[in-house]
Amino acid sequence: MNVFTTSAEVHAWSIAQKRAGRTVALVPTMGYLHEGHLSLIREARKHCDCVIVSIFVNPTQFAPNEDYDAYPHKEDDDIALCEAEGAAAVFLPNADEMYPRDASTWVEETVLAKGYCGAQRPIHFRGVCTVVAKLFNIAAPDVAVFGQKDFQQVAVIRRMVRDLNFPIEIIRAPIIRDEDGLAKSSRNTYLTADMRKRALSLSRALFAAKAAVDAGERNAAAIEATIRETVTAEGWIPDYVNVIDTETLTPLQEVLPGTSAILLACRCEGIRLIDNILL
Amino acid sequence: MNVFTTSAEVHAWSIAQKRAGRTVALVPTMGYLHEGHLSLIREARKHCDCVIVSIFVNPTQFAPNEDYDAYPHKEDDDIALCEAEGAAAVFLPNADEMYPRDASTWVEETVLAKGYCGAQRPIHFRGVCTVVAKLFNIAAPDVAVFGQKDFQQVAVIRRMVRDLNFPIEIIRAPIIRDEDGLAKSSRNTYLTADMRKRALSLSRALFAAKAAVDAGERNAAAIEATIRETVTAEGWIPDYVNVIDTETLTPLQEVLPGTSAILLACRCEGIRLIDNILL
Repeated sequence: MNVFTTSAEVHAWSIAQKRAGRTVALVPTMGYLHEGHLSLIREARKHCDCVIVSIFVNPTQFAPNEDYDAYPHKEDDDIALCEAEGAAAVFLPNADEMYPRDASTWVEETVLAKGYCGAQRPIHFRGVCTVVAKLFNIAAPDVAVFGQKDFQQVAVIRRMVRDLNFPIEIIRAPIIRDEDGLAKSSRNTYLTADMRKRALSLSRALFAAKAAVDAGERNAAAIEATIRETVTAEGWIPDYVNVIDTETLTPLQEVLPGTSAILLACRCEGIRLIDNILL
Repeated sequence: MNVFTTSAEVHAWSIAQKRAGRTVALVPTMGYLHEGHLSLIREARKHCDCVIVSIFVNPTQFAPNEDYDAYPHKEDDDIALCEAEGAAAVFLPNADEMYPRDASTWVEETVLAKGYCGAQRPIHFRGVCTVVAKLFNIAAPDVAVFGQKDFQQVAVIRRMVRDLNFPIEIIRAPIIRDEDGLAKSSRNTYLTADMRKRALSLSRALFAAKAAVDAGERNAAAIEATIRETVTAEGWIPDYVNVIDTETLTPLQEVLPGTSAILLACRCEGIRLIDNILL
């Protein structure tokens, strides 16, 4: 497996793959890889001949009050995991490689990025779009795989890809959960044992909502209220709970099975968790 | 010569060229082609095996008070001119092909785009960067050629290409002038005979400034004052006159031959002309 630290190496490698008739899939990550990321690599391998995983904690998507400096790292383990999953290459740039001191160009999606996590984190998706556009140009993939866990992120990136005509197929891979239901996240490492136990209320609330919809419930307000009660009872404060259209992210009053999802973000003692479920 | 109206056709054509081992150059234009544009096609042919010319009057780079609706068109002539210059393809999309109704993604360069024409036209370069990023993804060129006439535009695009890692070489091709010195521009068609005569003061002032620099003048303020006098005497009101660094566009107090230029924009009776000269 190749381990690259410069954009030029990655681009040359990708072009060489294509010249040799091989397709390339990109899995962009911020490292501290867990089973969720590994499922993205496996999904990517289904679509393309070779997979490149980028590992870069992108400073431009963190606000000054956020956890950029605290974000967990374990590069050596990450590289070993990528190799074990059959990735062909890993791209591990440093911040100087990705952002010249006088970098001044941004890619911004201005509609889907505004609500939900974007409302709480106003510069977040501008940073995400910019770094993903850069990674797309560097790695020139045929396919890129993102996790459904970051539901809004996938919607924003799909919109960016459509609007800017990136010739790249975006795959949304399912959420991977611990056995007890907690959605896998690098940030779960911040949870104490007690918080983690109470955090199970998020997935429990979403599963119950899905079961209610399967049993005929269509009223979004009722579904959202029940979820709020469930997580609040466990000490998690909802940032937002919304039944939404999966493509436009518009809040819905009525569930439309097949094109609806529930997005959920909660806070507790400075930790913020997100989760979602397709309906 | 191929005449394409859809992005999908252009992309497939470009990929086919590359598969066949041929390099592709893109010349983005807004049509109403003149000798300046044709010189860009000739320059492009020096660098690549096949040249594609895009002809698209991009609505997002015009403010509501600007000349989008009045911008001159002559598509049939343009196509014939491209063919005569040996272009391999022309891309003539309509606005719906380029912008879905709910397009919501922008590419914005936030430093070099701010002064000069950007100060007068606050949304202009955001529209330019966005459409050029789209054209880059659609046509996937190895090289793109832009005219030095739009000096700030080339600097902004070079910065965008660097910042977003587009794998594309940007060529800045020299200004083409009428025999009497007026820089070629599709907007020259707006000039009355009298205004055109008085518009020669722009190039005359720039040539005189260059001669002064060649003779040893280094004082930017003195150079700018002389230019202002020359064009004002002919009824043209300067929007800006600046001796600048060619890469950062920073205004200079002292000319540094080899890395300096003079940027000039003037207005007269609602017509706006720009010109520039390398020092």
